[in-house]
Amino acid sequence: MRIFCLDLEGVLIPEIWIGLAERTGIEALRATTRDVPDYDALMRQRLGLLEKHRLGLRDVEAVVATMAPLPGAREFLRWLREQGPVIILSDTYREFAGPLMAQLDLPTLLCHSLVVEEDGRIGDYRLRHPDHKRASVEAFRKLNFHVTAAGDSYNDIAMLRAAHAGILFRAPVAVREEFPGFPAVEDFESLKGAIRDCGEH
Amino acid sequence: MRIFCLDLEGVLIPEIWIGLAERTGIEALRATTRDVPDYDALMRQRLGLLEKHRLGLRDVEAVVATMAPLPGAREFLRWLREQGPVIILSDTYREFAGPLMAQLDLPTLLCHSLVVEEDGRIGDYRLRHPDHKRASVEAFRKLNFHVTAAGDSYNDIAMLRAAHAGILFRAPVAVREEFPGFPAVEDFESLKGAIRDCGEH
Repeated sequence: MRIFCLDLEGVLIPEIWIGLAERTGIEALRATTRDVPDYDALMRQRLGLLEKHRLGLRDVEAVVATMAPLPGAREFLRWLREQGPVIILSDTYREFAGPLMAQLDLPTLLCHSLVVEEDGRIGDYRLRHPDHKRASVEAFRKLNFHVTAAGDSYNDIAMLRAAHAGILFRAPVAVREEFPGFPAVEDFESLKGAIRDCGEH
Repeated sequence: MRIFCLDLEGVLIPEIWIGLAERTGIEALRATTRDVPDYDALMRQRLGLLEKHRLGLRDVEAVVATMAPLPGAREFLRWLREQGPVIILSDTYREFAGPLMAQLDLPTLLCHSLVVEEDGRIGDYRLRHPDHKRASVEAFRKLNFHVTAAGDSYNDIAMLRAAHAGILFRAPVAVREEFPGFPAVEDFESLKGAIRDCGEH
């Protein structure tokens, strides 16, 4: 029996921090681990920026609510959910992704969470598990699922490797070149085809 | 971070075999493990009855499509999916439950599967894992989730015990009396209250 594990940002929805940067005008929110390799330092910088601009969770939620899933993502996800159970494995924060999950008909999202103070200020973040994409795929394998995983970036590679079948979706050239063993597709129709091709039989 | 594991039949939807018996008039499909304690013998009997009456998967799907989720289940599930990830853990078969899953807005269902022949005949069944409700809860705990589980019958007890918090929902008196350690509720509003009460804090 198959189960499908999907990355979220870049696959079904736009990058949330980029969207926040664009919509709030706070350019420094565009920073990624390419700019600040230490993830904790990066998150402290991001949360510091939100605090400096007095943006609490409600404000962030309101901004995210103006974002939309990638074109075709909702229809693709509906199709996939009819093929078998779908688990979205993401390093985003539940509180950020919420408004976009509603637009995707509330799929099951396993991710991290924020510490929100009583006044709505985002005080801290909590990584639920340091390597949860890979660990989740391994857990589903132990539950006797045939796992197909799709993602777009370096932090998805461990998940793709752990799965029975891994697919790169809209991955940057550097990622596709470094990991040529994974089929790489660019649109949802091709992703459906790749998912059909790598089934149990 | 919380995750919610729910049984399906008796909690969100009616018992599928009972519904099949009522709608097809094949009374013998009402048999349960109370009548035939050996589950494999019971399933052979059920599949034999379907074959004898020339009911293939399409016919069964058409019958199940006339069934509906329990009153209030869809709204409850929508509420719960906004609280955190929801995984339905059931000993039903994916091919049977499909039409009802669509009516519940395609939640994530982990269950078993049927072997369907090319002519649509249901040839066999495949239990994905002998004890998957308990094993799934344990896997989610290892992924650092706080697990709340709800179910109605004996085959849910291992899942309820493995979870951080277990709740009996519309359980028969015998089950409630044998396992008085679990809170027992009878309607969705009370289930919401019990779920709120047993959170992480």
